[in-house]
Amino acid sequence: MDKTSDALAHARALIACESVTPATGAVFDALEAMLAPLGFECHRFVRGDADEGGPVENCLAVRRGPEGSRHFAFAGHVDVVPPGEGWTSDPFEPEIRGDLLYGRGAVDMKGAVAAMVAAAGEIPREAGTISLIITGDEEGMGIHGTRALIDVIRERGEIPDLCLVGEPTSVNRLGDMMKPGRRGSINVWLEVEGVQGHVAYPHLADNPVSKLVAMLSELDALVLDEGTDWFQPSNLEITDLEVGNAAHNVIPRKARARISIRFNDLHTGQALADMVSAIAQRHGGTAKPVISGEPFLTPPGRFQDLVAAAVKAETGIEPQPSTSGGTSDARFLKDIVPVIEFGLVNATMHKLDEAVAVADLETLARIYRRIALAALAGDTE
Amino acid sequence: MDKTSDALAHARALIACESVTPATGAVFDALEAMLAPLGFECHRFVRGDADEGGPVENCLAVRRGPEGSRHFAFAGHVDVVPPGEGWTSDPFEPEIRGDLLYGRGAVDMKGAVAAMVAAAGEIPREAGTISLIITGDEEGMGIHGTRALIDVIRERGEIPDLCLVGEPTSVNRLGDMMKPGRRGSINVWLEVEGVQGHVAYPHLADNPVSKLVAMLSELDALVLDEGTDWFQPSNLEITDLEVGNAAHNVIPRKARARISIRFNDLHTGQALADMVSAIAQRHGGTAKPVISGEPFLTPPGRFQDLVAAAVKAETGIEPQPSTSGGTSDARFLKDIVPVIEFGLVNATMHKLDEAVAVADLETLARIYRRIALAALAGDTE
Ligand SMILES: [Zn+2]
Ligand SMILES: [Zn+2]
Repeated sequence: MDKTSDALAHARALIACESVTPATGAVFDALEAMLAPLGFECHRFVRGDADEGGPVENCLAVRRGPEGSRHFAFAGHVDVVPPGEGWTSDPFEPEIRGDLLYGRGAVDMKGAVAAMVAAAGEIPREAGTISLIITGDEEGMGIHGTRALIDVIRERGEIPDLCLVGEPTSVNRLGDMMKPGRRGSINVWLEVEGVQGHVAYPHLADNPVSKLVAMLSELDALVLDEGTDWFQPSNLEITDLEVGNAAHNVIPRKARARISIRFNDLHTGQALADMVSAIAQRHGGTAKPVISGEPFLTPPGRFQDLVAAAVKAETGIEPQPSTSGGTSDARFLKDIVPVIEFGLVNATMHKLDEAVAVADLETLARIYRRIALAALAGDTE
Repeated sequence: MDKTSDALAHARALIACESVTPATGAVFDALEAMLAPLGFECHRFVRGDADEGGPVENCLAVRRGPEGSRHFAFAGHVDVVPPGEGWTSDPFEPEIRGDLLYGRGAVDMKGAVAAMVAAAGEIPREAGTISLIITGDEEGMGIHGTRALIDVIRERGEIPDLCLVGEPTSVNRLGDMMKPGRRGSINVWLEVEGVQGHVAYPHLADNPVSKLVAMLSELDALVLDEGTDWFQPSNLEITDLEVGNAAHNVIPRKARARISIRFNDLHTGQALADMVSAIAQRHGGTAKPVISGEPFLTPPGRFQDLVAAAVKAETGIEPQPSTSGGTSDARFLKDIVPVIEFGLVNATMHKLDEAVAVADLETLARIYRRIALAALAGDTE
């Protein structure tokens, strides 16, 4: 298990490549330079134009095991969100201060990708087929990232038996939480058009704001469900209002709002889109829904048990299975393979001075190694 | 009655003075030049700094009748709203095309002020005291206009017995409508502050939009009253909404709205302000009310009858008493004198190519003369 300390070296190498989403080039060169010596074949490809969230690079790295062996996949991303102003040290120059490694992507999720590579380096080829499904577009529009990788995986017939996504799921300490599922997400842009007029002559106008308020009132009062064994109740938030009328004696012509729904597996994005549209229409408005992701769930069973056992063996704690939080690329991968997310402590993700405990990098590499070995051994359904 | 054709000459002279609100100088020089030869003493004064809607000129013109005689006042304004682009002829060069006199202020309300002057010129001094209460700030902020004139009237002890405001109250033809009252007006700025957060973690946030929507829903459902014999039902309109949150996965920190209430004499501005503030607070928000004007009503009686009789004698039609529409400076004058509004056809007021029928100017001068003479004769309560 000595070489899991490669995790730190790999993390430094990846952080040193500036790769604000969408990512191409250098960070993938660095990744390939780590994987090739371990016997991985890297299928790299670039997709998408600038006007549709591109160009995006992706890498499907595969090291085939013996004929007929099982196939375990790690999935993740090497693009990062913009660093912002105010870092203590350069966000793209990895720096260790105290017990922590600082740099953009340290926890989300170049640190986890580094741990995957380190883990893979410790797994004998005879154990089975290992792949790394790595995109440069998880933090961006997500059009040409994991979805394109899934197409390539299908084309090449490299569909894994199980997949672990390395997003930072831990909350207070490494190992305290895993995500065997995530809620779905949909945003809806609502609009009501009326007839402009003077407030002194309301009968000559048709105030769209009244209709919008009634619509939002009905939407906000909806109880979508009470939650399930594995999911919190689905939740709707009104996230924006807009009229933009500076004239206080004028009834405006148009009123807009936006809502965001995070929903569990009792719903589909389309059913919610239809329901919101019907309510909008009943109040004289229109709805433009955009479904960001459907919910997914890998229900309790051998895969969850295997991940929990690996985490417990290395950290002494039992990870709590949770489906809370935002979406991840697991929403796409779940279409081809059972997927669970587990990774570093997310406290500093997307923030200034993002940092990971150096010790956690090495522990995570060992956890990932245990998960992969157990998965390849077939200790699952 | 020949000299009521002076109304046209006076209207031309006033229109030729560019006097976008707030007005000072030339237009008042022109006014004084018309009134002085008729025996009026003009008390002109300028008030206010530029940062509070000034400088504003006002003119209290008085021609005193015999000791102990009655006092009738005309009130109006010589400031105008900005002309805007696209006039057929120069808005400040009066031009007659066909039967119409074109120019900014033709109907609102230099034409009416011209008719007042022409009427005054036809009333013998022995009939009683006549005054013209003329401001340069009716279309602007209204801080240093008629309110300042009322102070001067009080100081000088020139309080009239009755007052006619010459705003353009006619709708389809001269004489079809008079305004013995107007509704009050109040605008309220509403705000709710919450706690910003991520839509995926609503329990860590406090969405101010939900509270604002509930607040507006309650306000919009209010039935303030059913109207009275002389007033339409009071009415509340939501005129603006604002959040300004571009991030669709963020619960915003603040939400704002604005409402406008036009209310009849069953309410006071302060009572409505208190009621709205209480509702806002109950929903966790705050309210900033600004009362623009209290309602006024000169109830049916001798003054209304006298105006109606004068209109009918000159036009053949009975003016409908109405309290609809926006506010006017009558909201201030009603504190010192019974007031009724009657004036030109308002179809083109505040619009491009504002115009008055030349014949209407002369008819209006004759109507004003009849009203003043009847009022001075004491044919009222
Ligand atoms: Zn991530
Ligand atoms: Zn006016």
